[in-house]
Amino acid sequence: MTADEKIIGVLGGMGPLATASFYTKLIEETEVTKDQDHYRVIIDSNPKIPDRTKAILYGGDSPVDEMIKTARNLEKSGASILVMPCITAHYFHDEIQKQISIPFYHVLKGLSDFLDSHYPSVKRIGVLSTTATRDSNLFQSFIEHKDVLFPDDADQEGKVMEAIFGANGVKRGNKGDYPKRLLKEAADTLIHEKHCELIIGGCTEVELVLKSEDIQVPFIDPMTIAAQNLTGA
Amino acid sequence: MTADEKIIGVLGGMGPLATASFYTKLIEETEVTKDQDHYRVIIDSNPKIPDRTKAILYGGDSPVDEMIKTARNLEKSGASILVMPCITAHYFHDEIQKQISIPFYHVLKGLSDFLDSHYPSVKRIGVLSTTATRDSNLFQSFIEHKDVLFPDDADQEGKVMEAIFGANGVKRGNKGDYPKRLLKEAADTLIHEKHCELIIGGCTEVELVLKSEDIQVPFIDPMTIAAQNLTGA
Repeated sequence: MTADEKIIGVLGGMGPLATASFYTKLIEETEVTKDQDHYRVIIDSNPKIPDRTKAILYGGDSPVDEMIKTARNLEKSGASILVMPCITAHYFHDEIQKQISIPFYHVLKGLSDFLDSHYPSVKRIGVLSTTATRDSNLFQSFIEHKDVLFPDDADQEGKVMEAIFGANGVKRGNKGDYPKRLLKEAADTLIHEKHCELIIGGCTEVELVLKSEDIQVPFIDPMTIAAQNLTGA
Repeated sequence: MTADEKIIGVLGGMGPLATASFYTKLIEETEVTKDQDHYRVIIDSNPKIPDRTKAILYGGDSPVDEMIKTARNLEKSGASILVMPCITAHYFHDEIQKQISIPFYHVLKGLSDFLDSHYPSVKRIGVLSTTATRDSNLFQSFIEHKDVLFPDDADQEGKVMEAIFGANGVKRGNKGDYPKRLLKEAADTLIHEKHCELIIGGCTEVELVLKSEDIQVPFIDPMTIAAQNLTGA
């Protein structure tokens, strides 16, 4: 397949702002001199997909049927490769891949390869993610040769989840100081008390407010790595 | 149709950054308490659609066939209403509408209604748009009861088109001071020399860099009006 024929399908809506952010990254990571140099991208932003955190942790409605429907819709629309700008939803990645016949890029595998090649000497990495991602061992199972650390329960719920899902959190459209401060505090504790040498924005909402300049150690956004890998030569 | 059943199809990629910006507006204009409250949005960002300006002004390849294919792809994917975040491309709106069976929201009609209801006393409006939009009389034919004014040729080419298409312009990914300064100068001339009481960002790229606070008179973005109309009750 030539680059011209690649059509990137985005299984989106989990949530919509994170999807819009990833779409912008795909555009920004592509070198162009005119519109026509960009990849074709088809996005199905389907916010009706049931909540992934509730399904994984609390026995809520499974999102799998709706995710498969959305993935098939993208395949039918002409997508030649799929990607999903929601880390938590990768818990269901393999179930979806089995139901479609185009490749489904795996954000955590891409991240793991990147860490191995760019940060081979880093041993302790901290992750800011949803509790569902933390408790489902998604990061631990894909990132080998490194210790993967998360905030303690108090910080995980009171800071990270509050910043993402709280009444003044990112999923309500707040990208201001409040969620940023909470996430920075959780990151600082990972760095100073758990000796993490690198922080991962393990939920797409995290990097909507937390930026590299807020963190004293390298801050890696898996969706930026995904955008680079998908638009690379 | 209930709001829950509305699926917004975005005929995008003209250009991609403008499409990403419009998608973000659709999200921000929807009041939600959780992801699931958002509308489903399907975007086909097809940058392979030939350049609209070249087709309208210089006899370049027609974009119509590729636009119809993309519109039909969105209809097939389940979209119940289409919208196009490219003002210039509205030159071809009616040709596309005839080839699909779902409604195709018209950004200029929506703008005209908004101006009539919100600015009934404004008589002179200035438009910053591509030269193709200016010369095809798109704004003039939809905005009745008002004088529609554009920059003179020197400003139109040297400032507006340079800001949008130039080597350091918005379509090359530059959202910084250079295109902003050029657009602000063109707007100021419309206000001070042509006595415009209101400025319209008549190309989706314009409002990526020019903001209300840069302009002394009301600055209206037709795509924000479209996002409000499409996500309203």
